[in-house]
Amino acid sequence: VTSTPPRRRGRPPRGQDEGRPGARERIVEAARKEFAERGYDKASIRGMAKRAGVDPALVHHYLGTKEQVFEIAIESAFAPLAGEPETIMAQGVADVGERLTRFIFGVWENPATREPLLAIVRSAVNNDIAAAVFRKLVVRQVIRKIAVEVGGPDPELRAELAAAQLVGTAMLRYVIKAEPLASADPEVLIRRLAPVVQHHLTGGAPRAS
Amino acid sequence: VTSTPPRRRGRPPRGQDEGRPGARERIVEAARKEFAERGYDKASIRGMAKRAGVDPALVHHYLGTKEQVFEIAIESAFAPLAGEPETIMAQGVADVGERLTRFIFGVWENPATREPLLAIVRSAVNNDIAAAVFRKLVVRQVIRKIAVEVGGPDPELRAELAAAQLVGTAMLRYVIKAEPLASADPEVLIRRLAPVVQHHLTGGAPRAS
Repeated sequence: VTSTPPRRRGRPPRGQDEGRPGARERIVEAARKEFAERGYDKASIRGMAKRAGVDPALVHHYLGTKEQVFEIAIESAFAPLAGEPETIMAQGVADVGERLTRFIFGVWENPATREPLLAIVRSAVNNDIAAAVFRKLVVRQVIRKIAVEVGGPDPELRAELAAAQLVGTAMLRYVIKAEPLASADPEVLIRRLAPVVQHHLTGGAPRAS
Repeated sequence: VTSTPPRRRGRPPRGQDEGRPGARERIVEAARKEFAERGYDKASIRGMAKRAGVDPALVHHYLGTKEQVFEIAIESAFAPLAGEPETIMAQGVADVGERLTRFIFGVWENPATREPLLAIVRSAVNNDIAAAVFRKLVVRQVIRKIAVEVGGPDPELRAELAAAQLVGTAMLRYVIKAEPLASADPEVLIRRLAPVVQHHLTGGAPRAS
């Protein structure tokens, strides 16, 4: 945690911060925290600037409008995972249901990725702009990458129905906290869900669970 | 739309309103609208009272705390559907997946039930008290009624995983609006989802879709 310097007035100190390595990264990190804690509606550019210790104009300068900042913030939150759908699909469609289900549970069971994901879901449920950003990210980064490898008729619809099974499980487990699902062993859930995900993606009958 | 009478001060006019038929119903209806439009966090007893044209104390008198008002409001919104899960289950487990999926789509595709449901989902995602009320309603009114008829091992977990498929589809279709799912023909979706719901509930392999 870095201390916040006194608020500067007037023109943003672009000359000073622009070239400094990490200024943009610091602002992106601050934006992520602001959105995670306050949600899209309540998050403010001013709040992000305060967290990063910069002038609000610098947030706009680096990242653009609030909508653009949101998009950059959530893309950065999931950047470490961006290659995963391709890696999973590259291993072929046999058992893709299990690999994909296991990957998604890994994301949800890890608080470091669950918290920003919950923040995005909360924002998307309450705000149409946040929903549009989330939709674009999910469809481009996950659904299309899966669909292109799955092939066959309606691959995008199939990928979305598989995603729906996993999204709904996450809603009931982590948000609504319905028992016994909320306390179930992740391995039990993976064993039950993998055949359904496989079924949606490849159209084969799931193994009995 | 009834006009709002001038705000009364001091003791609520219980003697006047208490016995009047429909006062409670009018307040429940006002509470439903207040929660639907403002969400749990922003909804206020004062706002409900204003909509119903009564003193705020009367809302507490009839319905209790904000949490209790929320529970009564959402139970009343879905009261017409309360008997459905039992009716569906009473017809036996063969094709229960299709009957249940068709019923859920009927609820979501009808704006009169979709809007209050979206309002509850929004509230539950943002507020732990609203989530607890929603959880209690879903588990008691839907999951347990289905589970008791399904039987076998882990019937409640199976019912929740079936619910998860439908909840996730609703999230992606109506909230996130991911295409092609958002514009897909409900009959196409029912045909694809019914075997999965059937599989979760009864453990049988879904028919190829």
